[in-house]
Amino acid sequence: MKINVVKNVLAASEAAAADNRRRMNEAGLLCVNLLSAPGSGKTALLENTIPRLGADARTAVLVGDLQTTRDAERLGGLATQVTQINTGRGCHLSPAQVAAGLDSLDLRRIDYLFIENVGNMVCPAAFDLGEHVRAVLLSVPEGDDKVAKYPVLFQQAGAILVTKIDLIGVLEYDLDRVRGDLSKINTTAPLIQLSNKTGEGLEEWLAWLTDRRRGVSA
Amino acid sequence: MKINVVKNVLAASEAAAADNRRRMNEAGLLCVNLLSAPGSGKTALLENTIPRLGADARTAVLVGDLQTTRDAERLGGLATQVTQINTGRGCHLSPAQVAAGLDSLDLRRIDYLFIENVGNMVCPAAFDLGEHVRAVLLSVPEGDDKVAKYPVLFQQAGAILVTKIDLIGVLEYDLDRVRGDLSKINTTAPLIQLSNKTGEGLEEWLAWLTDRRRGVSA
Repeated sequence: MKINVVKNVLAASEAAAADNRRRMNEAGLLCVNLLSAPGSGKTALLENTIPRLGADARTAVLVGDLQTTRDAERLGGLATQVTQINTGRGCHLSPAQVAAGLDSLDLRRIDYLFIENVGNMVCPAAFDLGEHVRAVLLSVPEGDDKVAKYPVLFQQAGAILVTKIDLIGVLEYDLDRVRGDLSKINTTAPLIQLSNKTGEGLEEWLAWLTDRRRGVSA
Repeated sequence: MKINVVKNVLAASEAAAADNRRRMNEAGLLCVNLLSAPGSGKTALLENTIPRLGADARTAVLVGDLQTTRDAERLGGLATQVTQINTGRGCHLSPAQVAAGLDSLDLRRIDYLFIENVGNMVCPAAFDLGEHVRAVLLSVPEGDDKVAKYPVLFQQAGAILVTKIDLIGVLEYDLDRVRGDLSKINTTAPLIQLSNKTGEGLEEWLAWLTDRRRGVSA
C-alpha cells in the first residue's frame, strides 16, 4: 500500500512535467532550469544574462524560494514577465508549482523561460519540471569537492558554470579536480568559468544559450 | 489512508530521535548537529575545533554525505572516532541513520559528538536527530540574504556562525542585514563571526561549545 502511494506520486509528477513540456513546446519557447546551492549566483547570472540577450529576446523567469520575493524584485525590471513561487518549507520546485507558474505567464510572448530553482544541491535534481535543459552553477567558494559529493545534480546538467571564478586567486581551488570528477559522470556538458562580477565567461554562456534556443522548434 | 502513512512516518522519526537523545544522555556526551549549505566550512570547522578542545576531550563525528568518504578521511586523524554515513540520494540525515551511527561508536568514550549533516539549507532543518543543540553555518560568499530566505534553519539554531569572514572585505556583505533578519526569528543564538583560515572567532566558538558541554549531566 505504501509503495502504491509513492508510485502514484511519482507518476503524477512525471505526467505534470510532460504536460509542462508540451505547453512550452507549443509556445515555441526554450526553458532552462537553473540549479545550485544557495548563494551560487543564480539571480546575479540572470541579472547579467537578460539584458545581454538583446532587446528582441522576450524573457520570463519563474523564481523559486521558500520565503521572500527578493529575487523576483531584483529581476522585475529586467525580464518581460516574472513570477515568484514561494514553496514554504518545500525543498524544491515541483512540476505542479511550475504548471501554476506557467498559468500566470503569457507563454506566446516568451523566447527564453528561466526557472530559478530553490537553492539546494540535492532535491531539485530529482524532479523533472518539464524544462528542456538544466544549467548547474557551482561557485568557487563552495569548494572543489562538490561534483563527487553531489553527483546526481551534475550528471543531468546540460551546462556547468563555475561561478565566482574571480575568487580563484583568493581561495585554494583545484579546477582539475572538478574536471576529473566530471569526466566520470558527465562528458558532454561544457564547463564554463564565469564571474558575474567581472563578466568573464558571459559570452560563452550566452553563446551556449542562444545555440540551445535555435534548437527549439516553434 | 495517505495521511495515516505520513503520520506514522513522522511519529517514527520523532521516536527514533528521542531514543537517540536518551542514549546520548545516558552516555553523558554533548551532541551538536552542524547544518549549512554545501561548502560553508563544516569539515574545516571540525578540523580546527577538535585539536583545540584539548587532549582530554574525547571527540567523535558522524559525517553525512550523499557520496564519498572525503570528509571522514579529513577528520580521521583528528577525532577519536569517525563514522561516515552515505545517504545515496538522501537530502538529510535521518534519526534512524544516526541510530545506526551511534551503534558504530563506543558512546562511553565520547565527550563531544558532532553530527556533520548533509550540505543543504532546507531538509536537514526539518529533522530532529536527537542532538542537544544545533549550530548553523552561513558563509559570507553565500550572500547576506539567506536568513530571510531559509528561516526554518535559523529559527532552530543554538548558535549561528558566519564563516569565511576573512572574505568580507573582498565581497559586498551587509552583516547588519543578517542581524536584522535574525532579530525577527531568533534572538537567543549568538552570532559568531569566524574564519577557518585566519582563526578569527574560534575562541568564541570554543567557549560556547565548552559551556554547552558543562550543561550536560553525565
